[in-house]
Amino acid sequence: MAKTKSASETAPTAFTEALRAGEGFDLLALDARSTPGFDGDKAAGEEALAGLGDRLADLQERLYAESKAGGTRSVLLIIQGMDTSGKGGIMRHVVGAFDPQGVEITSFKAPTAEEKRHPFLWRIRNALPRAGDIGVFDRSHYEDVLIVRVHDLVPRGQWSRRYSQINAFEQKVVDSGTTVIKVMLHISSDEQKARLSERLERPEKHWKFNPGDLDERAYWGDYQEAYQAAVDQCSTEVAPWFVVPADRKWYARLAVTNLVLEHLERLDPQWPKADFDVEVEKRRLAEMP
Amino acid sequence: MAKTKSASETAPTAFTEALRAGEGFDLLALDARSTPGFDGDKAAGEEALAGLGDRLADLQERLYAESKAGGTRSVLLIIQGMDTSGKGGIMRHVVGAFDPQGVEITSFKAPTAEEKRHPFLWRIRNALPRAGDIGVFDRSHYEDVLIVRVHDLVPRGQWSRRYSQINAFEQKVVDSGTTVIKVMLHISSDEQKARLSERLERPEKHWKFNPGDLDERAYWGDYQEAYQAAVDQCSTEVAPWFVVPADRKWYARLAVTNLVLEHLERLDPQWPKADFDVEVEKRRLAEMP
Repeated sequence: MAKTKSASETAPTAFTEALRAGEGFDLLALDARSTPGFDGDKAAGEEALAGLGDRLADLQERLYAESKAGGTRSVLLIIQGMDTSGKGGIMRHVVGAFDPQGVEITSFKAPTAEEKRHPFLWRIRNALPRAGDIGVFDRSHYEDVLIVRVHDLVPRGQWSRRYSQINAFEQKVVDSGTTVIKVMLHISSDEQKARLSERLERPEKHWKFNPGDLDERAYWGDYQEAYQAAVDQCSTEVAPWFVVPADRKWYARLAVTNLVLEHLERLDPQWPKADFDVEVEKRRLAEMP
Repeated sequence: MAKTKSASETAPTAFTEALRAGEGFDLLALDARSTPGFDGDKAAGEEALAGLGDRLADLQERLYAESKAGGTRSVLLIIQGMDTSGKGGIMRHVVGAFDPQGVEITSFKAPTAEEKRHPFLWRIRNALPRAGDIGVFDRSHYEDVLIVRVHDLVPRGQWSRRYSQINAFEQKVVDSGTTVIKVMLHISSDEQKARLSERLERPEKHWKFNPGDLDERAYWGDYQEAYQAAVDQCSTEVAPWFVVPADRKWYARLAVTNLVLEHLERLDPQWPKADFDVEVEKRRLAEMP
């Protein structure tokens, strides 16, 4: 007798497999204009993306519904990337396609005075998604091994211990029922130059620019090294990194949407069963004016 | 010399004027299938709605950008309505069309033990939108004069004072720079019966139903009276009520989107001026590798 495969066995995995940063991953060797897991051009990519909406909406609503019946599962999407790598566009176009009732975006800026008085994971823990939700982090605890490492904002001895602290933390988050999807948007230095230049050319983009962005750009190589280290040390079995080539915005949006979709497919959330007698309620309603 | 009209004078106001509940408003006389301010049918309505996206995105981004340069203005959209009136659909389809980075939805359920220890406006005050944001309330402080009034959850002497407390509170919110848009989704009793029936017929909708919904439906007349009182006493000059006929979902979505759009047009937010020397930064960037 043929064995029926479970949804988690038959779920699509094309982008998950193409983008997962495993053993021997080399950031410098990854072409930021490549489109792993996808053969088509921009038009085909946009068409493919539009075709995902209904399935995504269905899965998201099931995850949410499941939690109303006591389910504890949730999803956490972490978005990291250099300045101008397209984090805002992912929020607008990918996260914006989810039902906003089940989404919470947390944007992590430089820590406030209060946040600085706590361990670096404190503000992260406070922002973890509720059961049934898709939480989205625009930057995250990885800043504490990226900008902090590049500028030694804390002593080296302190930031170098954070990789294993992060791994232990993420293990607990996963154990509690949260699927963690860590995405790095990878752009080339030339592409960043072009995007910063566009912000300077267009007056309606000036508010997005500040001169400090150029100061940071001068540390490009150090940041690439810090990203490589974060991937090397924190791309774990339970919470791997996905590095998404992002010079082509259409591809990055398609890839991140598919990553979320593939993870939701594997979760395979189910509509809860009614906890009341449906026939009784139908009769009660029918008898009402 | 002809005087140039300001944006607030030329902003469109068709839905604002058609839906505003003024002196002599009579809820029982309002046809829940009517489409005030719009002549077309469903297909025309959906086309009109799709055409609003770009302008809405532009205005929302301007409001957000303005706040980054010190602006203090924000928008608060309050959605009230009977069970099944389509609040969730407004969240999904209207609020879902906004950029999620500048939106925060707060869903007010029965107050928690902690919330009950505070005055009824405490949890509302804690959820007001940040500068630049569009805050959205799925239910609100009006529950404290709706379900609370219908069931006398607090003594009459206490809830009857709340109307003037609400007016004083909303006056302060408006004075602080928040544009308040209060929307009641108005459905007919027959339409609610049909929608509850659909929830019972379809297993994937069962999680949205609970038998208490039918208990509440038995108080239909009392709720209509409580809504009429809320509109009579709290449709003020600074924060009027807009009562949106909602038996046709396509119309309700079109109407609420237009209400937000018309209010944003009147705010007329502007791109901030650069606070740095654009030419200097262009040269710095050009000189970088």
